[in-house]
Amino acid sequence: MNVLIVYAHPERRSLNGALNDFAVQRLRDNGHTVQVSNLYEMNWKTTLDANDVRERSTDAPFHPSLDSKHAFANGLQSRDIEIEQDKLRWADALILQFPMWWFSMPAIMKGWFERVYAYGFAYGVGEHSDTHWGDRYGEGMMSGKRAMIIVTTGGWESHYDARGINGPMDDILFPIQHGMLFYPGFDVVPPFVVYRTSKMDETRFEATRDALGERLDTLWDNAPIAYRRQNHGDYRIPQLTLQDEHAAGQTGFAAHVE
Amino acid sequence: MNVLIVYAHPERRSLNGALNDFAVQRLRDNGHTVQVSNLYEMNWKTTLDANDVRERSTDAPFHPSLDSKHAFANGLQSRDIEIEQDKLRWADALILQFPMWWFSMPAIMKGWFERVYAYGFAYGVGEHSDTHWGDRYGEGMMSGKRAMIIVTTGGWESHYDARGINGPMDDILFPIQHGMLFYPGFDVVPPFVVYRTSKMDETRFEATRDALGERLDTLWDNAPIAYRRQNHGDYRIPQLTLQDEHAAGQTGFAAHVE
Repeated sequence: MNVLIVYAHPERRSLNGALNDFAVQRLRDNGHTVQVSNLYEMNWKTTLDANDVRERSTDAPFHPSLDSKHAFANGLQSRDIEIEQDKLRWADALILQFPMWWFSMPAIMKGWFERVYAYGFAYGVGEHSDTHWGDRYGEGMMSGKRAMIIVTTGGWESHYDARGINGPMDDILFPIQHGMLFYPGFDVVPPFVVYRTSKMDETRFEATRDALGERLDTLWDNAPIAYRRQNHGDYRIPQLTLQDEHAAGQTGFAAHVE
Repeated sequence: MNVLIVYAHPERRSLNGALNDFAVQRLRDNGHTVQVSNLYEMNWKTTLDANDVRERSTDAPFHPSLDSKHAFANGLQSRDIEIEQDKLRWADALILQFPMWWFSMPAIMKGWFERVYAYGFAYGVGEHSDTHWGDRYGEGMMSGKRAMIIVTTGGWESHYDARGINGPMDDILFPIQHGMLFYPGFDVVPPFVVYRTSKMDETRFEATRDALGERLDTLWDNAPIAYRRQNHGDYRIPQLTLQDEHAAGQTGFAAHVE
């Protein structure tokens, strides 16, 4: 299988760097082909702007989504964006690896999604009708591919408990796992989370590495998170609210998991 | 009062640009002093890295939080970071204005927080004991200041309902409002959200502008979101899980609002 790892950490000599090296090697040992988009090393252009469109008239106001649509449809995207899109087409699985900063991914990775996820590629795909509201949330260009997050955080596991002060880790990752991965069609397997990174010693590092290895070995075997598909009856269209009989009375992110 | 607006949109001739112009004027008309950090116009350095620390030995591995602590404590932060920190010290209120991209703020604004929110400034503040786990979640350098989000999205309001497919808007904004604003001590008033931006005509724009004006006029009158304070008995320390008697049986982000 082909695995794309999108990786964001500013220092190679770090826990993230060590886990990245390990993950690449383990996947290769298992017979997979691996590409790494090491965003800091690539000096990835983080900020979405008018320079992302080639041969653009400078008179018209720049419109992030309409300009993206035009550029994608007409082969006028910045070359660095096209290269990353080709990697996504090639990949059978996408792994995002990052340290959690302020309860989300680093800016450089957010900017990778903003620029690579073009209109016509990751959104704005498919027809809109009374029974189908675009190819999204379970359908789309990434259908049939898997995705997984590897994330590190300085916080304690209990701080991210169901009743922990930071909010549950599943909910913190929902905008990414549901909104950025399941949205264009990825099957998202549960994340691999490393807590309390400042308390990492050799013994704990070895256990962490082994646990990650196990998750990589079973990347194609683990059941994806059972997010509800948009166009299969669970939601009213076009309101896109859950039908009353599903997760009756429940609100919040967890209602969107079957 | 002093108001800092941190603003991120790549095109001035846009709905966001028009709302930003309006907000600045309205606040000034009300007698407030306003500064705008227009991140795209400033060409804000989005990516946190070792260049954020002056006079840094290049031999040692770069550690995002420990290097930030050292630089903040010793006056060795990059000058652009210090300028933004001074604006935060000066401000009585912070307004974040941005288009929602992939269920969060644009990368350029995320990078503003990652770099400006130094260790010792926005986190890593205060003592840790059996009854007090740092000055955070209701205490910290931003205590006594207010914060508000102005956000635009192409999606329909129903898609962000309590049972809407994107998840509730309050939950999508929780990592920002609770995790990035309440965390260092801001009182966070409810967000001003503009939905379905592609269907904006003159009539709707005027109504939107008027509604925003009303919110700006009452910025100091509206009750903040009642997030639970960390060090006042609602949470076990150091586990930081909600005591059983609070929001009994409830899980998810909403449990952290009284």
